[in-house]
Amino acid sequence: MGSEGEKWGFQGNEEVNAASGMTIQGVLVKLMENLKAVNEGKPTIHLGHGDPSAFPCFRSDTSSENAIVDALRSSEFNCYPPAGGILSARRAIAEYMSRDLTCQLSPDDVFVTAGCTHAIEIVISVIARPGANILLPRPGYPFYNARASLSHLQVRHYDLRSEQDWEIDLEAVQALADDNTVAIVVISPGNPCGNVFTYQHLKQVAETAKKLGILVIADEVYHHLNFGSKPFVPMGEFGSIVPVITVGSISKRWIVPGWRLGWIVTNDPHGILKKCGVVDSLKNYIIVSQFPATFIQVELNLSLLEDISDDMDFCLKLAKEESVVVLPGSSVGLKNWIRITFAVEPAYLEDGLQRIKAFYHRHACMHATTQ
Amino acid sequence: MGSEGEKWGFQGNEEVNAASGMTIQGVLVKLMENLKAVNEGKPTIHLGHGDPSAFPCFRSDTSSENAIVDALRSSEFNCYPPAGGILSARRAIAEYMSRDLTCQLSPDDVFVTAGCTHAIEIVISVIARPGANILLPRPGYPFYNARASLSHLQVRHYDLRSEQDWEIDLEAVQALADDNTVAIVVISPGNPCGNVFTYQHLKQVAETAKKLGILVIADEVYHHLNFGSKPFVPMGEFGSIVPVITVGSISKRWIVPGWRLGWIVTNDPHGILKKCGVVDSLKNYIIVSQFPATFIQVELNLSLLEDISDDMDFCLKLAKEESVVVLPGSSVGLKNWIRITFAVEPAYLEDGLQRIKAFYHRHACMHATTQ
Repeated sequence: MGSEGEKWGFQGNEEVNAASGMTIQGVLVKLMENLKAVNEGKPTIHLGHGDPSAFPCFRSDTSSENAIVDALRSSEFNCYPPAGGILSARRAIAEYMSRDLTCQLSPDDVFVTAGCTHAIEIVISVIARPGANILLPRPGYPFYNARASLSHLQVRHYDLRSEQDWEIDLEAVQALADDNTVAIVVISPGNPCGNVFTYQHLKQVAETAKKLGILVIADEVYHHLNFGSKPFVPMGEFGSIVPVITVGSISKRWIVPGWRLGWIVTNDPHGILKKCGVVDSLKNYIIVSQFPATFIQVELNLSLLEDISDDMDFCLKLAKEESVVVLPGSSVGLKNWIRITFAVEPAYLEDGLQRIKAFYHRHACMHATTQ
Repeated sequence: MGSEGEKWGFQGNEEVNAASGMTIQGVLVKLMENLKAVNEGKPTIHLGHGDPSAFPCFRSDTSSENAIVDALRSSEFNCYPPAGGILSARRAIAEYMSRDLTCQLSPDDVFVTAGCTHAIEIVISVIARPGANILLPRPGYPFYNARASLSHLQVRHYDLRSEQDWEIDLEAVQALADDNTVAIVVISPGNPCGNVFTYQHLKQVAETAKKLGILVIADEVYHHLNFGSKPFVPMGEFGSIVPVITVGSISKRWIVPGWRLGWIVTNDPHGILKKCGVVDSLKNYIIVSQFPATFIQVELNLSLLEDISDDMDFCLKLAKEESVVVLPGSSVGLKNWIRITFAVEPAYLEDGLQRIKAFYHRHACMHATTQ
């Protein structure tokens, strides 16, 4: 790079570039670059990156389209969802997943995500800590490797046994794990092998994980896409043996990968994930993919108030006494200011401002009560 | 925690919890918990987290709803988009942003994201490197602090001058920056102050950044929502002075924050971001939020092939000679296998398999040509 380039203090990120190179997408980009633009008149046949939705014979059911149109026309879902997703969606996913489970799930067990890749990102980011390692299947889905690499989580591969219908080599799993192992990823049905695990085998996986004291992450993005006679058994069925975090999405079954709707489900009847702080951190990670709005900012003159120590104190007392929520300025870097959203119905805003006024009169210093 | 808890090797993530606590959402959760469930019969008035879309008077235009319905009914957009977004969307954003710019943008300058928070995540993750720091406005939008913290990027705050219509204190900016400073974030129009910067002031910001050798990240999520007489000036107008990365979204102007559509735009007529590797890393980070499919896996018997060294060699030659793209198994951890997607139209698949057969016959060992 010449002297022109050297004066700039920013640059690309080798860690990100390396992680990207691990993914299927990264390999396909390399293959596509290798492809001759015009190849003896042959149009390219792409059997590499599978996306059935591009073909008319794989068109999604119109009922799924109608559901989206109805939601859109209702104007009820243009808003920011609460962290973890809107309750009706979480309830629907809990009911859908519970159909195959002995132990029923509640909406609190469900976190809605932007597709399964987002679910994987969240779970990997939360369980990563310095020095920790994770057990991944080989062959497997390299997005796990990429996300583990970005989170500095060491990867250890256990083999799937091709001669045994791609079952997990459980002896190898035990030999690989140590005190720094936090989780094992099980992809079921298998990706890329398409195998379906038996009830008995998955139970052994759960028992092995319990013995090792590690979490099971069950990637069931291909759930119910099992060809052949073996029934699909959800890993969550063994949540009473070991905590299981299931990730999945609507992409494959409804053939709408572009809709980006996935989930994280905790199968944990003994509440171990909650006790260990994992549930709180899942919630917190989702908040770190969240949002703001339209408002004005007001400086508090604390000398006019008798018993208010700062902006946070003002907001806490206002919420408690008047059920009005405003944001303390300190959360946006401006101590002793408050932020009031004006992007609400006028009558609602007027009611809120009246209550703030009443609150002020109640807390004003004696010499400053003349409004 | 009792002995039951101690045997598990996983736990919550303090870094994630701390980052979450920095966000507006995190503060609001704390305030809401403080709120009495029943408060003398008063329904809660929420003037904290602004989301106008919840109110009928802020309903989005039906033209935006119609556009979504048309896209949905066409079935053309159920697929995975290419990394960075589909070309028509990138072109539309480039044209929309170019309206206010002297120097016109191309679709290659645009990366489509899942809302502006995703855009911020991508940019911050890419420019972070050990020891680096970033200049953020105070008051500002704390999501930047949260993402910087997760990326171990040190934050240094410069003040906005309340007595000077919230202009940037440029002397403070110069005093704060050092050789490890990579970027300055400018929120324009201001969030949370709602101020609009003048052309002259933004030009001075660009000149200061150029002098310091740092990137300008312009957060224009509130672009065109400027009340008062001052016109909105996009920071990208000064891209010929210093590279500017603009982040934005449709959320605020169309009042559809739940639709999660945002963008990253590079305003960089001199191609400095490309030269410094930032553009490649932006593309690569987006790939690390990507996806797989429906397929079968085939083991290569290399002893039957004359001049194929491994699976990658097989795939590269197949692409070059037959314009057929399949995935080398090594990219999913299975060397000398290949992955073939079957989720395509039958005729398309048959054509592809015929070409693979022709390829095989051409490369087969002499003693093995009998199919």
